Parts: sequence; C-alpha cells; structure tokens
Amino acid sequence: MLDRCFGARRIRQIQRTFRHGKITILCLFLTVLVLRGYLGAGKFGTPEQDFKEIKDHLHFRKRAEPHRVLEEAQTTTTETTENNNNNNNYGTFDPTKIAVDEEGDDEKPDPNKPYSLGPKISDWDEQRTKWLADNPNFPNFIAPNKPRVLLVTGSSPKPCENPIGDHYLLKSIKNKIDYCRLHAIEIFYNMALLDAEMAGFWAKLPLIRKLLLSHPEIEFLWWMDSDAMFTDMAFEVPWERYKDHNFVMHGWKEMIYDEKNWIGLNTGSFLLRNCQWSLDMLDAWSPMGPKGKIRDDAGKILTRELKGRPVFEADDQSAMVYLLITQRDKWGDKVYLENAYYLHGYWGILVDKYEEMIENYHPGLGDHRWPLVTHFVGCKPCGKFGDYSVERCLKQMDRAFNFGDNQILQIYGFTHKSLASRRVKRIRNDTSNPLEVKDELGLLHPSFKAVKVPASS
Amino acid sequence: MLDRCFGARRIRQIQRTFRHGKITILCLFLTVLVLRGYLGAGKFGTPEQDFKEIKDHLHFRKRAEPHRVLEEAQTTTTETTENNNNNNNYGTFDPTKIAVDEEGDDEKPDPNKPYSLGPKISDWDEQRTKWLADNPNFPNFIAPNKPRVLLVTGSSPKPCENPIGDHYLLKSIKNKIDYCRLHAIEIFYNMALLDAEMAGFWAKLPLIRKLLLSHPEIEFLWWMDSDAMFTDMAFEVPWERYKDHNFVMHGWKEMIYDEKNWIGLNTGSFLLRNCQWSLDMLDAWSPMGPKGKIRDDAGKILTRELKGRPVFEADDQSAMVYLLITQRDKWGDKVYLENAYYLHGYWGILVDKYEEMIENYHPGLGDHRWPLVTHFVGCKPCGKFGDYSVERCLKQMDRAFNFGDNQILQIYGFTHKSLASRRVKRIRNDTSNPLEVKDELGLLHPSFKAVKVPASS
Repeated sequence: MLDRCFGARRIRQIQRTFRHGKITILCLFLTVLVLRGYLGAGKFGTPEQDFKEIKDHLHFRKRAEPHRVLEEAQTTTTETTENNNNNNNYGTFDPTKIAVDEEGDDEKPDPNKPYSLGPKISDWDEQRTKWLADNPNFPNFIAPNKPRVLLVTGSSPKPCENPIGDHYLLKSIKNKIDYCRLHAIEIFYNMALLDAEMAGFWAKLPLIRKLLLSHPEIEFLWWMDSDAMFTDMAFEVPWERYKDHNFVMHGWKEMIYDEKNWIGLNTGSFLLRNCQWSLDMLDAWSPMGPKGKIRDDAGKILTRELKGRPVFEADDQSAMVYLLITQRDKWGDKVYLENAYYLHGYWGILVDKYEEMIENYHPGLGDHRWPLVTHFVGCKPCGKFGDYSVERCLKQMDRAFNFGDNQILQIYGFTHKSLASRRVKRIRNDTSNPLEVKDELGLLHPSFKAVKVPASS
Repeated sequence: MLDRCFGARRIRQIQRTFRHGKITILCLFLTVLVLRGYLGAGKFGTPEQDFKEIKDHLHFRKRAEPHRVLEEAQTTTTETTENNNNNNNYGTFDPTKIAVDEEGDDEKPDPNKPYSLGPKISDWDEQRTKWLADNPNFPNFIAPNKPRVLLVTGSSPKPCENPIGDHYLLKSIKNKIDYCRLHAIEIFYNMALLDAEMAGFWAKLPLIRKLLLSHPEIEFLWWMDSDAMFTDMAFEVPWERYKDHNFVMHGWKEMIYDEKNWIGLNTGSFLLRNCQWSLDMLDAWSPMGPKGKIRDDAGKILTRELKGRPVFEADDQSAMVYLLITQRDKWGDKVYLENAYYLHGYWGILVDKYEEMIENYHPGLGDHRWPLVTHFVGCKPCGKFGDYSVERCLKQMDRAFNFGDNQILQIYGFTHKSLASRRVKRIRNDTSNPLEVKDELGLLHPSFKAVKVPASS
C-alpha cells in the first residue's frame, strides 16, 4: 500500500513541482524581458546595430596623433535612425516622432548629370562690384582694415543622439556669440540641409555658396564647426595679412605639398573671401561630396593618395588637401596656410595647458600661448561614439568654455570659481562710478567695434 | 494506510505549494521592483516627491486664460538636485558630476542688511552723457530713430533636467540670432548666476543692472526669456513711440490698475532704457527677490493682493504688477504698456493659427495677424514638469520655430516642407544672377540694418 502511495505520490509530486516551476521560470523570464526591454531598445539598440557601431568605433581608433574624425554633427540624412533618440524623451514622450519627415520626398538627383552646386557664374566680381557701388549703405568694409565678416556655423535640426550633445552645442554658440559681439562679426546659425546629396560635413558647401551670393556685402565668410570654441576673446584676425589671398586655413605647407598628409590643414575653421575665385574653388571642391557611390569611391582615392588617412567616405578636408596637391598651380597662390596663430587649434595639445597659460600669458596672442580657437575634433558630443573618452571630452569642453568665458566675465567683474566649475565668483566690487572701471583686456569697448566717426558729425 | 498517506501527503502538498508559491511571489515581486526601479527613480521620483509635484501641478492648473507660469529656466541654486540629470548621460556617463561645484562656498548674505543690487548711483544720466560725448565712436543711436539695443537672454549653466530642453534652447537662440542679425541688435546670452540670492527668475535683475552700467552705449536693453521666440522677422519695434518712456512691457492698463491682475503684464519680453530712472526702477523692483523667507513672504502678499495669482514664492512679474499698482504715481508715467503688437505673445492663443496667418497675412505686422513674439509660458521644456502636455508644447514650439524660420529661409529660396517638418524644400531656383532676386520681405538687406552713409564719403 505504502509503495503504491509513494509511487503515485512521486508522480504527482513531480507534476506539481513542474507546474510551479513553470510559473517560476515564466516569471523569471518576464523579469529578463523587462530588463532587456529597458536596457536593450533605445539605448543599446539591437545586437546587430551594436556590432556595426563597435566596428565603426574601432575603425576610427586606428589613427596616429593628431586625430581628425568626421564632423557629422550636421548629418540629417534619412539614414539616421530616428529611434535612437528615445533618450531625449521629455517625460515618456518621444519628440522625434513629432516632426513629420516624409521619407522619399526628396527630389531624386539625375544620375546622368554631374553634380553642381548651382548655375555657373563667371562674372561675380563684376556683379558684386556694381552692387556695392549701388548700395553704399551696405559696405563690405565696416571700418578701415576691417572687412564685413559673417561667421557661419550650425548643427542638425534633430535633437542629438546623445542628449548632452545639445547642451554643448548651446554652450558653443554662446561662446561664438560672445566673441562675435566683441569683434563686430555677424553670425548665421544653420539648421537646414539645403542639398540632400551634400549631407554631413559637405553640407557647408551649398550653404556657403548660397550665403556668399545672397550677401555681396560680406567680404569674408568664416566657417566654424560647432565643436570649435573661441578661447581668445581679445584676438582680432589680422585681416590685412590676407589682402592678397582668398582662402585662409590653419595648416602647414610642408604637410600638404610634401607629405600629402590628410591633416595638413583643417576645414573646421576657415576664411573665404566673397569673390569669383571662391565660387570657382567651391565648384572644384564639391565633386567628391555627393553621397553614395561617388563619395565612397572618392574616399578610396583619398585614402590611397593621402598620408595617414583611414578608410572612410570622402570628407571635405581630405578633398581639399587632394585638390591643393593636384592643382597647386591653379589654387595655391591664393590659399594662405596659416599657422602663426590657432585659427584652428587641436584640443588635445591645448586643454591641459590652460592653467599654465593663465599663469604666464594673457589674451590677445591667439597662438600656442593663448589659442584663438580650441577645436574638439573627434569628440562628437552630439553623436553616440566619439574617438576619445567621454569623460575627457566633456570635461575639457567645459574647461575650454570656461577659459573663454572668463575673459567675458572679467569685463563685468566675475570669473568662474575654477575652470571646472559652472559657478562664478566676484573678482571686483561694484562702485558708484562704473565707468571708471579699468578695462584690462580692452574688451568692454573694443577698438574693433568702434564705428568710424563721420568726418562731418 | 491510505488515509495516513493522504493526510501526510496533503500536508506535504501544501508545504510544497507554499514553497513554490514563495518563489513565484518573490519572482513577481522582483519584477515589480525592477519596473519601479526604472520607472520610479529619476523620472518620477519618490512617492513623496510625486505627491508634491502633483499638488504643484494642480495648483498651476487653477488659472483662467491666459496662463503664466514661473520661468525657472535660470534656476542654478544649490537646491537643484544634481542627481536628476541621469537622463543626460553621454553613454553611461553622468556629466553633471564633471563640474566641481563646491557647495557652501557662496558668500553668506548679512541677514541684518537689506538687499541691494549694488552701490547706489544717483547721477547715472550725467555719467552716461559725459561718456557718450567722450566716445563718439560708440554712439547710443546707430541710425536716425534707431537706438543701440542689446537683447539679453540666457539659461542655466547646467544641462536641462529634461535632455530635450537643451535642444529647444538651441533652437530658441538660433531664432533670436536670426532676428537680431536682421535688425542690427546685439545679443548677450547669460549662463552665469551673478547673485546667489537672486536666483531663478530674479536673476535677470542683477544682470540687467550690470549690463546697463557697463555699456553706456546701449540705449535700450531688451530682456527676452529663453522660451520666447520671434515669429515676425520683418517687424521692427517702433522705437519712436517710446521716446518719452523708459520701460515697455506687453500688458493692459485696465488689467493692472483696475483688476490688479497678476498677468496684466508680462516680464518675459520687455524694453528698458539705459538711464537713472531704470536704475531706480530696478532698485524698487528687487526687494521681493531675495530667496528664502523674504521671497516666500512676499509671495503671500502678492497672492493676497493680486487677482488670480496662485500660491508660490514671489516672482518678478507679480512684483512688477504690485509695484505699479502701489506706486503708480512714481513710475506709471514712464511705463508703456504695449498691446498694439505682441512684444510678448502668449502661445496658447497663437500657435493654432499659423496656417491661417500664412493664408491671410504677411510678416511685418507684429500683432495678432503675425505675432512678433510667441512666448511658451508654462511649457518648461528644460524642467521636468510643465503646465501643459509635453506633446503639445514641443510640437507647437517646433511649429513656431519653423514659422519664424521660414521667413529666414525664404530669403535664400527655401522653406520648411511643413510647419511640422525639420526638412526644407526649394521654392526658388538658383540663377546666375543672384543679385536680381526679388527680396519679397525686404529681409535680405533690411533698411533697419543699413549704415548711415557719411555725408562726405
């Protein structure tokens, strides 16, 4: 009897254990699903996506100092995965779903037609000269030796994949607003992709052409990347130095023409004169830009021809190096490769020296002692993966911002508590005679801002 | 035997069921914990915090149209919870931990000393007049009937609690850059808390005073909130209208002086002349500002005295209403309550009409037909909870931005595909005679930008 009891009992025991076990397992499985649901989607993507991003990330690591990574802050192509913006949720809402972006609506470029930035213009100098003569109230020089300059920058109209990226874009434009206010330079902040074929870093070309042609009163257009910041608020560009040149980039002749080095110059911060030569230059520069096969194939040529260039699609900087080395006779004489001051300053070799600079030097030098521009190439705060550690990038961007901001704050008697701190402290007490304050850096009423006093006033 | 089997078996059955049940319950409990862990911390806070926020939220709902909610985008007090910024992680990194913000380092204000914005100045008009005479190259009028204007705005130096907030701050400053470039207005973007006592919406007072006193060349200072956008790029403020006034705010006399309504005016967008009267006004305005007991107690007075005001600490707008109604004789004659155009336009009654406006009107009107400013009071995209639905706020902010941006883009032959779309399309083909383009809105070379042609040029 007992044997029969145990036998049947054992069977029911097993059955019961199995039933309860199923519930337990189901419950544990649900827990895992929930965890994966929160960790998996949105933040880390699918495993397939992970692999691709890691691969891309490793790709960019294979570079010698100094680095240069694609400036993709302007990418607004339809390929960008909208779903990756889940982290930008304001509450539980996905803002990327507000905008109605109808895919496939772009005009499809005619594959048989070579790319063109626009209708050919051959008499721009004449057109412009006439316009300036007819419009004396929009002069191209706002003071003796002071050309009218438009600083052009921008970023994607989409929220950054990395939410913190938009905060750094905001600080970056504030930084530019400050410098430009002191130096009587106007700003154009672009958030529109004017030509779908020229997306990404190439987007600046159609934009620049459009602005030059629309604004004949502009003498120089100053393109500046969104990841570049002004760190010398007192330095005025030596415009006179470039009176015989049309295109000023930071770079070294030897690195371009002798070494054919892909980072022999930098197109993250450059000056372009508003003239026929520049329109022709833009036309000559653009052919490697159209996305897809053209850009990919061009990238291979550039990697083959230029020293140190990794494998990736054609970028505007490499294309410029290639243009100069292959057509030096045509363009070289009007291109000024500037390295006496940091029109572009690679952040890696500058940011650790700010305290030393403060100790030993002063604003107004613009060079290695006090760089005009600190450019965070490779950091990509707007994207997901940069080429450097996140912590280092963001920390140094804060320091660079504060380093520049201190020069503004000191005008008003304040400074950041430290280069790492957002907070400010007073360094000069207010008085009842504010106009007697010594303007140490000459930034309160800078000479480069002064209007020309009319002769008969 | 069988009975004994069943009896013991039943007991063991029950025990086993209980054991398995315990595991099942534990497992379900863990699942709930995990869900709560992801939904609860950071996003929704503790239950206690939830209650408080719901209470505050309900409080702000008790209002008649139009609404006005605290502008807290500038809050940088030490009370702000740094930990709430976990959503801003760039990867897994918490950027709020980079900045070294040493708490408790602020100078503690003397409780026995009444608050002061700075040393008393009584001869500012004289100081300023002398300075202007000595500095003719920094005139306070840049053209006949065109005063030199500085537009002042800003936001917290910290990343927004809501990551998407920084993206909207970025769009907002681009919008202001565009308007100000067209209208020859300079911009000061503030990210520094100059006076810890006057944090939050009061932070603008010490800032404004500092800027007025540092820049005697400024004739008008235009304060504008970060959640206000320009939606009429062609409208020029009628400066001559205010030649006998020093302070221009959008509002209605009756709502202020008769109704004592707390939203009878709006301090999110106003003009303040650089003169002694304005310094005195700032001094008279500031006493309700110092945070803590003063501000809390003042809030109670304001709620009691003003119609429709909810219970919360004193804000600068309510304080201004109170100042005007209690000291009308002193200040009233120099305050212009403007309602002929939307120097401030409450978004709730404007944003659904953009298509109608495009259909029936044109830029340059500045009023209900084409508002100069659309102000997103109550949306608080930078904070966690606004007073309106997230979806509506962000969607409408995008529409307002695009509505304004279209006026810029049309200069260059482009427009947004729709008011909801980030993407742009061409509306005018390029030609080889770009200078013959018809400048429909007169924004390409606006008359308000033209420099005065010297008599002997």
